[in-house]
Amino acid sequence: MPAAKNRRIVLAARPMGEPKDEDFRLEETDIPAPTDGQVLLRTIYLSLDPYQRGRMNAGPSYAKPVEVGEVMEGGTVSKVSVSKVDDLRPGDIVLGRTGWQEYAVASGKDLQKIDPTLAPISTALGVLGMPGMTAYTGLLNIGRPKQGETVVVSSAAGAVGSAVGQIAKIMGCRAVGIAGGQAKCDFVVNELGFDACVDHQNAGFTEELEAACPNGIDVDFENVGGKVFDAVLPLMNPFGRIPVCGLISQYNATRLPRGPDKIPLVMGSILLKRLTFRGFIVPDFFEQQPEFKKDMGQWVHNGRVKYKEDIVEGLENAVAAFKRLFTGQNFGKLLVKAEREPEKS
Amino acid sequence: MPAAKNRRIVLAARPMGEPKDEDFRLEETDIPAPTDGQVLLRTIYLSLDPYQRGRMNAGPSYAKPVEVGEVMEGGTVSKVSVSKVDDLRPGDIVLGRTGWQEYAVASGKDLQKIDPTLAPISTALGVLGMPGMTAYTGLLNIGRPKQGETVVVSSAAGAVGSAVGQIAKIMGCRAVGIAGGQAKCDFVVNELGFDACVDHQNAGFTEELEAACPNGIDVDFENVGGKVFDAVLPLMNPFGRIPVCGLISQYNATRLPRGPDKIPLVMGSILLKRLTFRGFIVPDFFEQQPEFKKDMGQWVHNGRVKYKEDIVEGLENAVAAFKRLFTGQNFGKLLVKAEREPEKS
Repeated sequence: MPAAKNRRIVLAARPMGEPKDEDFRLEETDIPAPTDGQVLLRTIYLSLDPYQRGRMNAGPSYAKPVEVGEVMEGGTVSKVSVSKVDDLRPGDIVLGRTGWQEYAVASGKDLQKIDPTLAPISTALGVLGMPGMTAYTGLLNIGRPKQGETVVVSSAAGAVGSAVGQIAKIMGCRAVGIAGGQAKCDFVVNELGFDACVDHQNAGFTEELEAACPNGIDVDFENVGGKVFDAVLPLMNPFGRIPVCGLISQYNATRLPRGPDKIPLVMGSILLKRLTFRGFIVPDFFEQQPEFKKDMGQWVHNGRVKYKEDIVEGLENAVAAFKRLFTGQNFGKLLVKAEREPEKS
Repeated sequence: MPAAKNRRIVLAARPMGEPKDEDFRLEETDIPAPTDGQVLLRTIYLSLDPYQRGRMNAGPSYAKPVEVGEVMEGGTVSKVSVSKVDDLRPGDIVLGRTGWQEYAVASGKDLQKIDPTLAPISTALGVLGMPGMTAYTGLLNIGRPKQGETVVVSSAAGAVGSAVGQIAKIMGCRAVGIAGGQAKCDFVVNELGFDACVDHQNAGFTEELEAACPNGIDVDFENVGGKVFDAVLPLMNPFGRIPVCGLISQYNATRLPRGPDKIPLVMGSILLKRLTFRGFIVPDFFEQQPEFKKDMGQWVHNGRVKYKEDIVEGLENAVAAFKRLFTGQNFGKLLVKAEREPEKS
């Protein structure tokens, strides 16, 4: 067992609005010892994702909140360090949910073994993991894109959005991204092969989106909400589908913005255009994991689906990195590389 | 051919907000003569329905507007007066869309013959017609009620709502109505067999609705929008379904109401609760007409589905009657009985 201490980040207070440094605390603890059926894991990659902002709030949601004083929740790719599980050995790479910490004890049944020869192990947290499966299941089950249709996706350079647009292309659709900044838009078009990408920071965003969707929008894979969605809604075609996957523009909201009441507008569009809005989270489609793994594994392998990672070194930088999710400063799937050289004892 | 004149109501101006008497004009014209393939019809029943408010507006919707100077649109049950169609004879009863007038010429292919021995002929405009089919297809295709679930329907005493709740009961659900006034609520519970009905005019409406739905709401068949919907949304259960059929509280709106911006609230609920909102109009499910006719015909015949009609005598009263749709003063399927005794010549 390494002589090092475990470092972990706990929720120190529930953030009001944008998370602040004081809402978190970096702690040093002893490294726990596994009992029978458990392994000691050393975190290699920690995934930072927008849903974690929701876990910082009290009150009911689709999952229980992180309590104040508890380790922040998160998906991880780790190396087995000590094993008291029959089919896991030291050195094995596993996918787990051990949170924002460098070491963790986990039960063998909560881990999935990763074959590092198939794809880079970090992809188990990205294009071949939860974000990729979110894109795949939400687009295919709710968006139901048909050949020739126009699919719009916001946060198009992000972990989910980049996969959505590329799957839309595979399905024969026109893929239009929305992203913040020219660099992301260029990446989305030139590297990922979207047909167009519009910068929501531009003054002429609404008009540019309209110009990029000459036949209207059939599917809006909604990741952002707020002003970005306001520009999308009027362009929706009758019978359009709107998988509502995320509303990142709203996650830090402390009160509802004032302004004209837009419920009649939303509801009126739903009615007149017979839109389908359907919210989902990826566990709703858990039974489709085998198809997802088969299809997406092949697409990534053949280069039909590309991915980009934004890797931050050191667990101590997790909070600063997490905050970048809400300012659009991350570029690609945000991961923390938490592996340190073991300290000399 | 009767020696009488035809009386008809044309759109005189596009209403701003609530329709006013001056927006319509009662005209007398000669009775038209049918040519080959046509019949002359004498209107017996004219159907007044909320969607007709939409046809009075210019601008795009799912159907083209009535032009100023044109006869107002509407479904009708008529008697064939003169026939130049092979399979229709004088005295036959037909369902058509000949609008707000006492006589009309129509093409045989635009008419459906009604068998007056099967059910009262007025039901072809109500429970066995478009409103009944709206209830049937919207509830079963989009609401997808499962046994034991709670189904809420607004305008519960109306043509569509009354059928929705009764079909929900047939499906083994708890049916909760929302209606305006105690008389309607009593009717909905005592005559139609809903489990509960809440009066939206009561000061404690929100709390009463909550008490009537102790297990939350699984399906909201939305006919009203506005404040009624505001009370429903927080009670929706995860994976709830909201067929959006009508928004009658909004049809006369000339501008969006001011107040807190509720898009984040609606969108947030869609996401967290994985709600499905889906707008529809009945032609979207046209191919299900045979099942509808079979099922609903049987249910009405067996007394499992009851209906109520609100019949106004005389075409000259159509405008006043139509306005009652928006103040909640009608009670049951609103019909105009347009048949006059032929004037003595």
